[in-house]
Amino acid sequence: MIKANNPKLRSWIATKADSDFPIQNLPFGVFKSKNKSPRAGSRIGDFVIDLHELQELGFLSDLDLPEEVFLHTSLNYFISQGKDTTGAVRERLSEILQSGNNELQDKEEAKSKVLIPESEVEMLLPVHIGDYTDFYSSEQHAFNVGSMFRDPDNALMPNWKHIPVGYHGRASSIVVSGTEIHRPKGQTLPPDSKQPVFGPSKRLDFELEMAFITGKSTKLGETVSTDQADEYIFGFVLFNDWSARDIQKWEYVPLGPFLAKNFASAVSPWIVTLEALEPFRVSGPKQEPEVLPYLKSKGDRNFDINLEVSIEPEGAVETLVSRSNFKHMYWNVNQQLAHQTVNGCNLNVGDMYASGTISGPTPDAYGSMLELAWMGTKPLKMSDGTERKFIHDGDTVYIRGYAEKEGIRVGFGEVKNKILPSK
Amino acid sequence: MIKANNPKLRSWIATKADSDFPIQNLPFGVFKSKNKSPRAGSRIGDFVIDLHELQELGFLSDLDLPEEVFLHTSLNYFISQGKDTTGAVRERLSEILQSGNNELQDKEEAKSKVLIPESEVEMLLPVHIGDYTDFYSSEQHAFNVGSMFRDPDNALMPNWKHIPVGYHGRASSIVVSGTEIHRPKGQTLPPDSKQPVFGPSKRLDFELEMAFITGKSTKLGETVSTDQADEYIFGFVLFNDWSARDIQKWEYVPLGPFLAKNFASAVSPWIVTLEALEPFRVSGPKQEPEVLPYLKSKGDRNFDINLEVSIEPEGAVETLVSRSNFKHMYWNVNQQLAHQTVNGCNLNVGDMYASGTISGPTPDAYGSMLELAWMGTKPLKMSDGTERKFIHDGDTVYIRGYAEKEGIRVGFGEVKNKILPSK
Repeated sequence: MIKANNPKLRSWIATKADSDFPIQNLPFGVFKSKNKSPRAGSRIGDFVIDLHELQELGFLSDLDLPEEVFLHTSLNYFISQGKDTTGAVRERLSEILQSGNNELQDKEEAKSKVLIPESEVEMLLPVHIGDYTDFYSSEQHAFNVGSMFRDPDNALMPNWKHIPVGYHGRASSIVVSGTEIHRPKGQTLPPDSKQPVFGPSKRLDFELEMAFITGKSTKLGETVSTDQADEYIFGFVLFNDWSARDIQKWEYVPLGPFLAKNFASAVSPWIVTLEALEPFRVSGPKQEPEVLPYLKSKGDRNFDINLEVSIEPEGAVETLVSRSNFKHMYWNVNQQLAHQTVNGCNLNVGDMYASGTISGPTPDAYGSMLELAWMGTKPLKMSDGTERKFIHDGDTVYIRGYAEKEGIRVGFGEVKNKILPSK
Repeated sequence: MIKANNPKLRSWIATKADSDFPIQNLPFGVFKSKNKSPRAGSRIGDFVIDLHELQELGFLSDLDLPEEVFLHTSLNYFISQGKDTTGAVRERLSEILQSGNNELQDKEEAKSKVLIPESEVEMLLPVHIGDYTDFYSSEQHAFNVGSMFRDPDNALMPNWKHIPVGYHGRASSIVVSGTEIHRPKGQTLPPDSKQPVFGPSKRLDFELEMAFITGKSTKLGETVSTDQADEYIFGFVLFNDWSARDIQKWEYVPLGPFLAKNFASAVSPWIVTLEALEPFRVSGPKQEPEVLPYLKSKGDRNFDINLEVSIEPEGAVETLVSRSNFKHMYWNVNQQLAHQTVNGCNLNVGDMYASGTISGPTPDAYGSMLELAWMGTKPLKMSDGTERKFIHDGDTVYIRGYAEKEGIRVGFGEVKNKILPSK
């Protein structure tokens, strides 16, 4: 077992029972505050840990870190030091924060420099994203979409159970939680018309996804096997793949989604490391028909991570609209990465790979409004009595996620975005 | 007229009549040599101009450039100074290199520092590419592909004349001319089979394209109109969108090309500026039906640029297989950029936007083997007597391009790649 994951560990910093950030998590992110330039941090309970201050104060001096490794606007440089280093930083944090360890606990001035109430910081996008891929790896989602747009008896495309289908998305428009997003404008084809019209999307939707971030690069021509993939996966975030369904429907044949997606996608600010998620591994679904040899994977490659989506209309309280789980993925992340690289496509540190919409097996576990309200035929009731077929201006959408086992909850916080009217 | 474009200008550096790099061109690129770390350069005739040395020697002191602006591994920082600055550098270069100007010509030591025979340098990828979009803007190409895979009577999709169709590609695997590329492996579905197989692509193809590079960023939510697009377009390169047709056919429905493309794309190393291409503007085809207002563009927005593709089998001389022209584009670059941003998608300096395969109206002007050899039914004869339906291992493919008017030729050099066997 990774020492920092020990469920018996307690910290001298009190954390609430339902906190996503107990001592067993210790994720990485980038923050700034009134007094501090952007830099890497970790998180415990309601405190952000200033890793640069910790290094300056000598607490990390045994780790042989480069100078100012945390003093960057993204985690890429830190992550590129390799898992031995990033893992050692997490282990050392765990040690410093454990009950009974006094080396920081007793130093009031050092503590005030290192521990910052999370309410006083602004979280930034954690990595500079080189390339972004969106997969399509939930069978229930692919089945739902196929059923709606084609035929329930032939809902899945012939390639779907052979290929972890994916496509490239726009990296520049991936934003951090909290960013407000204007409703996109675009071309749509009104029903029964042959002439497209231009205007604000009428079918704005979220997609409940998770994404992993690569922590190791490859050269063009190299491949990463399913066995090797863990070495390349640094950690995970929650991901909202905002989608304009009406724009998508008109544009996506034959080359895939473009403006329907690239106006914005959003991520949670804390990268939960693969190490922290180890205790929550579970087996995936049986893959039938058998996959090609390069896609075969051994061991537990899925993760039991509870996922929730809520909608908060302007001035009202939120309504929970979906409960899903990352364990429902048909294709696991090791298979996704093996597929991405099997043709020699090269990886960079900071690339992002989203799962595709994660829909569970029951209608209350679907991961998009398109599915939850079934193309507008089953509107969802909000707390204020209004109904939703898709997302309205003024709505804030929250995605939250956490893993839980043996009384230990390792969570992601949230990704939230408020939708503003079109500009 | 832009002064540096004056067709009457001559340089004290002799350039051959068929050189792509007369004094009217002065493109930008990144090079390194035995003695020089990567840095920005320009080009005249057979010489690369070391812009950093020029700055150090004081030749650019009136231009108020940041220190070491040229001493980077990409042009992004230089380009981000803005068109006033990059244009002024080009004008100043033109001045220094003009016949009759002695300020550099007479200084032997300075000349030996600034002018380097192009045979002594290695050209690098000119920009760090943030995001890469591939459009699909040649009507003949879309018609050819639609005819082959669907029906000549309904070859174009209903959206094609309303939308400059595009999709996101992989930025990490865009390489500079000269890079050798291994034949990609991947999944394909053999004819009359329901079980895919894995192995080297049997239908490796080039795509003759050009690409523009953005020189100015926007914030999320901002748009760029067709009128404004010129301010955002820094310049152009030749682009080979390497494609594995058999992989593409099996994977691309419903979300578009992925592994069929992202094993490699290649660009020519010199960015020819929009300013240098001004004299070669021509009108585009009439767009019928009328496009939506946000896509309307005024003035001459196409460019008369001759394009050629040659194949050189191992140990044989090259065979010219296609002559096309950039002027054949149905959708112009201003429309492409207006479309890309109409939903608020943000731009970064160094983003790359490829045209899609540029096929002219006659069969000898098609821009891919798929079209030239019409799905393998009309093999092309090579100089050594062998035939090509697609690209063989050992083949080197060259794309070359130049504009010519009033005796002045402004060219791009070439993008060439040799195909190696699968690893």
